[in-house]
This record gives sequence, structure tokens and C-alpha cells, in this order.
Amino acid sequence: MDMTNWLQKRVRLSPKETALVFEGKEETFEEINQAVEILAGKLFARGIRKDQMIALLGKNDRMTFLLIHALQQLGAVTLFLNNRLTKKEIAFQLMNAEVKEVIVADSLEDKITTGIRYTELQETEYEKPELLETWDLTRVSSIMYTSGTTGKPKGVIQTYENHWWSAVSSVLNLGLTEKDSWLCAVPIFHISGLSIMMRSIIYGIPVYLEEHFDEAKITQLLESGHVSTISVVTSMLERLLKMKEGSYHPNVRTVLLGGGPASKTVLEICKQRDIPLVQSFGMTETASQIVTLPPKDALNKIGSSGKALFPAEVKIADDGEILLKGPSITPGYLNNEEATNAAFTDGWFKTGDIGYLDDDGFLFVLERRSDLIISGGENIYPTEIEHVITSYGAVKEVAVVGKPDDKWGSVPVAYVVVDEVFKEAELFGICETNLASYKIPKQIVIVDKLPKTASGKIQRNKLKERHSK
Amino acid sequence: MDMTNWLQKRVRLSPKETALVFEGKEETFEEINQAVEILAGKLFARGIRKDQMIALLGKNDRMTFLLIHALQQLGAVTLFLNNRLTKKEIAFQLMNAEVKEVIVADSLEDKITTGIRYTELQETEYEKPELLETWDLTRVSSIMYTSGTTGKPKGVIQTYENHWWSAVSSVLNLGLTEKDSWLCAVPIFHISGLSIMMRSIIYGIPVYLEEHFDEAKITQLLESGHVSTISVVTSMLERLLKMKEGSYHPNVRTVLLGGGPASKTVLEICKQRDIPLVQSFGMTETASQIVTLPPKDALNKIGSSGKALFPAEVKIADDGEILLKGPSITPGYLNNEEATNAAFTDGWFKTGDIGYLDDDGFLFVLERRSDLIISGGENIYPTEIEHVITSYGAVKEVAVVGKPDDKWGSVPVAYVVVDEVFKEAELFGICETNLASYKIPKQIVIVDKLPKTASGKIQRNKLKERHSK
Repeated sequence: MDMTNWLQKRVRLSPKETALVFEGKEETFEEINQAVEILAGKLFARGIRKDQMIALLGKNDRMTFLLIHALQQLGAVTLFLNNRLTKKEIAFQLMNAEVKEVIVADSLEDKITTGIRYTELQETEYEKPELLETWDLTRVSSIMYTSGTTGKPKGVIQTYENHWWSAVSSVLNLGLTEKDSWLCAVPIFHISGLSIMMRSIIYGIPVYLEEHFDEAKITQLLESGHVSTISVVTSMLERLLKMKEGSYHPNVRTVLLGGGPASKTVLEICKQRDIPLVQSFGMTETASQIVTLPPKDALNKIGSSGKALFPAEVKIADDGEILLKGPSITPGYLNNEEATNAAFTDGWFKTGDIGYLDDDGFLFVLERRSDLIISGGENIYPTEIEHVITSYGAVKEVAVVGKPDDKWGSVPVAYVVVDEVFKEAELFGICETNLASYKIPKQIVIVDKLPKTASGKIQRNKLKERHSK
Repeated sequence: MDMTNWLQKRVRLSPKETALVFEGKEETFEEINQAVEILAGKLFARGIRKDQMIALLGKNDRMTFLLIHALQQLGAVTLFLNNRLTKKEIAFQLMNAEVKEVIVADSLEDKITTGIRYTELQETEYEKPELLETWDLTRVSSIMYTSGTTGKPKGVIQTYENHWWSAVSSVLNLGLTEKDSWLCAVPIFHISGLSIMMRSIIYGIPVYLEEHFDEAKITQLLESGHVSTISVVTSMLERLLKMKEGSYHPNVRTVLLGGGPASKTVLEICKQRDIPLVQSFGMTETASQIVTLPPKDALNKIGSSGKALFPAEVKIADDGEILLKGPSITPGYLNNEEATNAAFTDGWFKTGDIGYLDDDGFLFVLERRSDLIISGGENIYPTEIEHVITSYGAVKEVAVVGKPDDKWGSVPVAYVVVDEVFKEAELFGICETNLASYKIPKQIVIVDKLPKTASGKIQRNKLKERHSK
């Protein structure tokens, strides 16, 4: 289906409404669009055209925000590069995606061999570009690589249709008011951040863009009354909770939690403090959240990720894997038919996560299927053990993974970040009281910090690799 | 695109939320769905199957509400019959649409020759029906006949896609909150009413269904705090304004006005009373409102119908006709290729209405193109004259139409409903002060009432017919 160009339509609908707030400066949709048009002209002068694969390596800043829109206006496909990757990892993605050109923030230019720096682009003379008047929704909008637990990263294809339905499905659950705005302190090279930018033009609401997750600054914004919604991952939420007791400005109506389940402790604190936490489940392949708690159920269904957003569907396969269906789900992986075929079964997308639906149809995500520890034929869910371990106050962070074992196949090992009062014997005592013997970690390893992704997810696979070395 | 069955999806998402309030009785989506399934089984037992054309002749009541859903669940196409039509008019539609079966409210059975009465249906033994699991959005959902100003009525085809996009476009403009509900006192056999039912299952909000527009009852509901939104036509709004001074409960956040522009007086009263009036423009062919005032602009752009909803588009043709494009627009007229071809130009739908866009892109609807009076080469807009005439307090209602004239081609004639203090000379005085001489009605005809449609629109064509007799 051919749809009107979203940004241009938004400018016609609400030119004077705020589109972006970055470093305290507000810009309207009209102003953003003018800046985007100029950048599109400069990109055009540099030879960038419709359907070309263009990589973007930037930070959460105004220029990257504008470039994302400018590339969409030209009809280019944007490969979003994670700026925390190594030069080698980036080189793999550029090659795998057959990238035509790279646009790179000056501060990140060491990460690539060749490309157009932001300042170079700005100095380029403007040439009137050919902008898309309408958007064919089946066209590819963006590519984001995800690192599975095994094998090479795969380039997730996101169409305009995927982004559109994600935004519409979200609004049917979270609602929309005239006072809405979305605070984006998650990376815009991730779907969590990019989806906020897409919602902004579809809903006509401002993005409060933050370069870093600075909990003091974020808390200040949440208290200002200007922000209605924020997307966070667990580690961000934990930092926010430590920053300040109590709730935020009443205009904050949604704290959308993604990127993995939060501990019961964190959820209970939010409940006590009346923080409007909404848990969700989603991934790059689903163009962000696809299963989300309805705000009305947020307090009754603590620990659940909610229900599949309208019109998506969720079901659990016989082996416990969470399967999804819906129009926000990727058509597949770039240049990787094998991975695409492996990701779907009978039209359902295989998430690789294990979970269950309760009697009311609410999804509870247990863990990555690959994180499941099978010990002597028993299924052991790392999160269950982690919840027990976190209840010991001296443990600040924990991750439980399986370690190969000749007798049992695999046994649980706990990696913990602890404070000075930690005593291993006390922790084992808590485990023995709360866990069946086969679930008790065979080993507790004290570490300074746990390996995490750019978005703050614990990388269990990196811990597992230690055992295989 | 195949989408999940809307009602069933809604039941999975929010089974315990209120779906319908009729005659004070609340029913949840779960309860509604159970009743719908039983009715679908009875319809199935009566031989009603997917893709059959089934006419429905009912009132705004629970049974008609359930039947609309039941027919959708079976995948039948529903021809919505206007219950104010004559037996002869209904017979034309039944024949033209090649209807397989008619379901009729007992009180309306005299309007048809043969069909299944509601009570007969209820007495039918249930048989397990074949319900649609998924909905192909390109399928035809409903047919509604519209009477153009000339020729036979045409059956407007409404697909599921049309209804879906209408609901989504509306939410992107009006927003959605947990407290929302929609009061439906407009006929559900019209798109204004049916679209409320569709939004209800897509948004998960209650429909407050009223059999009649009883202004006392409606005012009571608007003061109750239970209703956030109501759809009205001008005559209903005028009755509401007479019923009570001041505004309603603060939970009433949208009074959506459709079915023709309101007078400046009415708009000013709403502004004074702080009534959240939102003007809109739409028709059966656009699956309800497609151009609507954003609530934020409601007070700055009095008299405007607003902007084309996301992602629809509006433009004005060289001759002043309002043209529309967007996914809620009908694919055409049933069994009437000629009318379908005539209704579109270069992919744009020709509304038959005349209007203009102001400098900010807001639409102002002037009138039906067919109502335009061309007198001695000058365009005369009846609404302009009507606004002047209404400013004379002794005039309660007015309609201006063209009358054939040998010298000028056409001249304006005013039909007025007046009270006892009316003096023709005074009215002419007002006209002479405010209107160019060629715009002054050549004749003022006092009538007891003006001819109106079921939805309260003045039927100018009926007045014009008087001159051609």
C-alpha cells in the first residue's frame, strides 16, 4: 500500500507542534522538516539515492536524528550501526549488508575505514533532492543487526509497515493525549530508540532526546511535567529508583520497560512508589514492543509482559517457546534465507524465548531458550535462581548460566556482583531454603561487573563462553 | 492482509471491560461475544454463510448491535437498511444489492415483504457456526445506500480496511484514554453509528447506545461522567444547547460534529460554554469523518472542518470541489461501475462538496456542489445567505436553494421556519445590509418545518424539487 510520506504529512497536520527537544532546544515539526530537507539535499549531492543501503554510525544527538529522517525522505535503506561495536564487528555488517556509503559522526570515524563525516556532509553544497512523495509500506526502511547467542550477527529487515503497525498497536494499548511526549534515552540505533522517532511523527508528539542515560538529568525531566512516557531497560530503571524516592510528575503516565524482565523487588518498589511501570516484550524483529501490559493491569499482573498488542498474536509452542504473529514482525533477515526460514514456523515468528500464558492470557517470559539449563533431565530457569539470589541484600547483580557437566549435562553457576558484607555461606543458606537441590548453583563466582549490551541487557552468552574456553 | 478477528482479539485483550451500555445495562466484551456467538449460531442454522449479502433492518438497540457483530463473525456482508425509508425504497435496495436474506426487527416487519424477524431468529435452534478466524481486510464488510441529489440511490461498499483505517485515523487525532467511551445516539445503520461500534472493539471502549436522540437523556449522560465522546449532527447539537446552559462533566472531551457545518452562532455558543466541539467532514464513502479539527485547534479555527486525518489527504479541484484520498475511502459502489468511475478522478474521490483550504491548510466546507446557485454568472453559496438570515432572531431554521429563472439562470429562494414576531420586511432589511443585491433571496417562503434526513440533515434537494414541479 502506498501511504502519504509520514514526516511531510505530520508537518501539514501540526507544523507548530514540538518535534524534538535536544539539549534544551525545542524545534517544531516544520523546523525539523526544513533541516531534514537541507540534509537530504546534501546527501543527494553526495550521490545518495532511493533504495541504496546507507549505514549510519552516530550518537543520540540532533544530527543523527535529522539524518535518520533525511535518509527516509530520500528513500534510502538505513543500516543502523551500534556505536559500541568494534571496528571489526562494524566491518562485518558493512560487508554483509553490501553498504553503498557510511555516514559517520566525527567522533566515531575511527570505527570505520571510509565514509562521510557529519562535518563533511554539512559542508557539502545543497542540491535539490528527489524526495519520496508517498511511501510504499512494503519497502525496507531500516536494517539492524542482532547478535544471536550463536553464529554471526543477522541483519533484521524492518519495513515501513513494521514501523507503522508497531506505532499503531502501541497507541491502541497505551493511548494518546495532547500532553504526550516520549523521552528517548535508549540508543536511536536500536529499535527501542528508532521506534520512538517513528511514533513521534505518526502521533505528532515531541521526542525528548538524551545523548546518555544520566539518571540525574532523566529524573529532572521526569519531574518537569514535560514528559509523559519514557522507555527504559531494567538497569536504567534500577538507576532511576536509586536516584530518587517517590514518584514523578503526574504527567508521567508510562514508564515502558523492555529488554528483559525486571526483578520482583524492582517491580514492588515501582508499585509502592506509584510509578506507572508498564512491562513489555519485544525485539528488533518485532519493531519494538509487541506484547505489553495494559496500563490498567500493570499492578495486578506484576511480572507479566502483558498481552499481544492489537492486532498481534502470541502463543506458546509445545517446547515452551514464545511464538508471535503480527504485522510489525520482520519479513526476515538480510541476505540470509537460512536464518529467515529458521525463524518462522507455520507463519509464526520463533522468539527464542521461553515463557507461558497464565489463565487470563498474560505472558510471562522466563528466559532465552538458549539460557535454559537442562540438568539431569530437569529444566532449570536461571531467572528463578536469580530472583532468589537477589533477595540477599548483599548481592547487587546476578546472572546464572549453565556450565557443562559430565554427570548432569549442565549445572547452574551464579555470577554475582556483591558489596563488602557479602558472605558466601549466607547466600548458600538462602538458596537451600528456597530452591530444590538441583537448582542450587554449584559454584558462585564473584565478579566486578557483569557483561552487558549497549542497551543494558546482561549478556549471559559471554559468561557461558568462559566455561567453554 | 489477513488480520486477527477484531471482536475475538478484543475479548482476549480486555474481556472484563465494558463493551455496551444499553438501557442502563452494562455488558462486557466477553458477555457481548458470548451473545454474539449464540446469535451467529442461530443465523447459521438459518442458512446464513460467509460472503452472502444479508440486509439488516433494525433500530439502535441491543439486538441490532449484536446482530451486526454476529454477521461480521460469520463473514456475511451486511446491507444496512435505513429504518425511515419507505417499503418501496427498501425494496429497491434489496433488489439492487441482490440480497439473500433480510433480518428485521419485529416492529419494522411491515417495511419488507419477506425476512426473518428478530423473535423468529431468537427462537431458532442454535447450530455451531463457522466463524472467521482471521479477517481479510480487503473483504466487504458493509453496504450503505446513499441518495445522491439525482438518480437512484447507490450502494457504498465499505471494506474492513475502510473501517480499520477510519478508527486508526480518528485515534491519531482525537487520542485515547482509559476513561474513554462513545455515546451513540446517531443511527447505527448509518456510518456515523456503525463506526462507533467498530472503534469500540478496536479501542476497547464502551458504546453507550441510545435508541433515540432524547436531549434530556443525552444531557444526563453527558453530565454523568461516564461518557467521553459523542457524535452529533447540527440539529442534535442545537437541541442539546437549548436543553442546558453551561458545559458538561469534565470527562466529556469530544463532541464530534458531522453531517454538515454548524452555524457560527452555534459554534460561538459552544466556545462560550467551553463545550469541546470538534467539527468534522466525512461521508458514507469515507467510512465516517476523514477531515477533522484537531482538538487543539478547535477554538482557533471555528467554522473549519479541520485537516485530513493521518494518513488521508485533501485537496481542492480547480472548480472548488473537495477531493479526498486515503485508505478509509470506499472502493466504489455496488454493482454500479458507472457511478464508481464517476466518483473518482486520478485516484482522488470526488466529494461533490465545495470548499477551500485556508493558508494554514484547514478545510472550510461551503456546500454541496449541486447546491451552488449560479446566478448571472456569479457563484452564490446558500450557506452564506443562511448565516445572514439566521442572525435574525425570529427565524428558527432556514434553507436557501436555487430556483430556475429565465433571466439569471437561477435565483436564491429562502425557506424559513419562523416564530410569531417574524416580519418579512425586517428580514429583507437585514439581507440588504449584509448581502450583495444578487445574493438577496428573491422570495421568502414560510414553512412549518424543513425536510430532513434520518440523521437530521436538511434535504435541499427536496426543496429544489418544488420548483421543478
